[in-house]
Amino acid sequence: MLVLLDQTRLPGEETELVCTDAPALVQAIRTLAVRGAPLLGIAGAYGVALAAARGFDVDEAADALANARPTAVNLAYGVRRAHAAYRDAVTAGADATDAARVALAAARALHQEDAEASRRMAAHGLALLDELLPGGGHRVLTHCNTGALVSGGEGTAFAVALAAHRVGRLRRLWVDETRPLLQGARLTAYEAARNGMAYTLLTDNAAGSLFAGGEVDAVLIGADRIAADGSVANKVGSYPLAVLARYHHVPFIVVAPVTTVDPETPDGASIEVEQRGGHEVTEVTVPFVPVTGVEAGGGIPVAPLGTQAYNPAFDVTPPELVTAIVTEEGVVSPVTREGLAELCARSRQVTIS
Amino acid sequence: MLVLLDQTRLPGEETELVCTDAPALVQAIRTLAVRGAPLLGIAGAYGVALAAARGFDVDEAADALANARPTAVNLAYGVRRAHAAYRDAVTAGADATDAARVALAAARALHQEDAEASRRMAAHGLALLDELLPGGGHRVLTHCNTGALVSGGEGTAFAVALAAHRVGRLRRLWVDETRPLLQGARLTAYEAARNGMAYTLLTDNAAGSLFAGGEVDAVLIGADRIAADGSVANKVGSYPLAVLARYHHVPFIVVAPVTTVDPETPDGASIEVEQRGGHEVTEVTVPFVPVTGVEAGGGIPVAPLGTQAYNPAFDVTPPELVTAIVTEEGVVSPVTREGLAELCARSRQVTIS
Repeated sequence: MLVLLDQTRLPGEETELVCTDAPALVQAIRTLAVRGAPLLGIAGAYGVALAAARGFDVDEAADALANARPTAVNLAYGVRRAHAAYRDAVTAGADATDAARVALAAARALHQEDAEASRRMAAHGLALLDELLPGGGHRVLTHCNTGALVSGGEGTAFAVALAAHRVGRLRRLWVDETRPLLQGARLTAYEAARNGMAYTLLTDNAAGSLFAGGEVDAVLIGADRIAADGSVANKVGSYPLAVLARYHHVPFIVVAPVTTVDPETPDGASIEVEQRGGHEVTEVTVPFVPVTGVEAGGGIPVAPLGTQAYNPAFDVTPPELVTAIVTEEGVVSPVTREGLAELCARSRQVTIS
Repeated sequence: MLVLLDQTRLPGEETELVCTDAPALVQAIRTLAVRGAPLLGIAGAYGVALAAARGFDVDEAADALANARPTAVNLAYGVRRAHAAYRDAVTAGADATDAARVALAAARALHQEDAEASRRMAAHGLALLDELLPGGGHRVLTHCNTGALVSGGEGTAFAVALAAHRVGRLRRLWVDETRPLLQGARLTAYEAARNGMAYTLLTDNAAGSLFAGGEVDAVLIGADRIAADGSVANKVGSYPLAVLARYHHVPFIVVAPVTTVDPETPDGASIEVEQRGGHEVTEVTVPFVPVTGVEAGGGIPVAPLGTQAYNPAFDVTPPELVTAIVTEEGVVSPVTREGLAELCARSRQVTIS
């Protein structure tokens, strides 16, 4: 079985969610109980290993897991990697038990590699910050949640801010609340508080005032998929920050492992953006407080009944608005198709045919 | 007494709030039970009339009302206007009853003028839209709430969209939810639904995706104060829309009565921006659903306890990002100090020394 921290219940409760089969994990991924690009890859890999260990149809489980969410490329990567290890073992004559062990080993390897990648991204990112902002005392704006909750290590963009904090060079972490699901308010604030960082929460639309007031030195965000041309799909609200950053001449830095780069996606227009239910916008879900008259997991309506909502989970920032992409293999800046391809070729990540 | 629609309880409940003295009205203004630039002016004027009718200290009441919120200039204007009428009557030898009647007449006149101003802003705004977008089928993005709820008439920016709807030229009203207090989700969606308009709600940060997809033909917003140079203070989140609109070559149109222009405020930097309590961001207030364990009017925490929040109620858009300012006296475009001064001079509004 797979035991996950249920992220929908943070920061009010630290609840474990137990998945005993792949469909339960698919459901946990769809409801965002488990979320965040790198963690989705790890969870997907463990999900394949779980299906193998429990004797379920591994091909079917891998297919369902890989398609649980369309935009995050790491999820499909993790699933494919454990699945490939399993298939290779079966082809080589391993019995079901041994093949399941091989799948689990693949998942564990991915988990460890992700932790190592976090450390290296943090080091490269901190060096870049210090180079771009030689004065120190960085005031960094971030969006959504990219810390230890999404990673085998300390995360992506958040890990860079944390590294700056540890060497005394983070003056302020500005935390976008990240509507509609408030991952910034619920999760990033929680991680910043636990790490003793100086942080301030804001509504996403208040970021403009910070830029206008000269209060932001850099934007640090993660990514769910990076196209071959350097277009970055990330949590909705990232693109407006990129436009604001450009308008105010502030560096806009994307931090993501090399596995987030998808050479199969040629450009931003080719990225499938997940459209989620309008109820995430028309209702406020506050699951950790019992609400009279609202069933468990249900939302409290804030808009008139019948209101339709537009609710893309991600947006796409074109490469010309991205100052740098920081990976565990190094930094691409300016962001070009060639620079990105070179970095990916350097990657020591296992390539799956 | 003054009977107001309690806007904090919309759209769940239509509750009347009764104010029997100025301090109660000040409280209603501070908690946003009554809100919106033009309506604040009308409410302020009626508040002075109420204090006069009930024999309270009118100077003290006027002072408290005018300072209940610092950014909205209409509030101070409405208060000053009823107060001046009252003082003039007293100076002219009127007794308390007659002076109170004069203050009430001034408030009623302002109320009627505002309704008339709404009609004229809607006509000027619609003509401008048709001129800027000759193809028709306007897809208009709006922020916060600027309709009948804030006005003696049909409002400011919303009135323009409604006029376009009535002549069959509004294809879609994109409604920003407007965090933190969700005036878009709660109030604009409510007004759009009541008027049978085609509208879609979105989180404020999803507007970037709409612009990138070419789905926005114009932005229409109101204003709380316009400086002499044409800088526009409006609900926080307006400035990021102005930057996005500029980046995507989309007209950014401000609709406000001439009383919103404050010649005493020379530029954007001189506008005092109201900073509101962080709890509006760290907690979600859903007052019309009883919540177990949360006291009436209290919020449900979404961020970790102790989280500090940055919560400016407004932001300031510089004139170079504003395509046009639409008033009841006509349109200023491009927005210049001279153009604005000329328009104000043309205004038939009562000038108060």
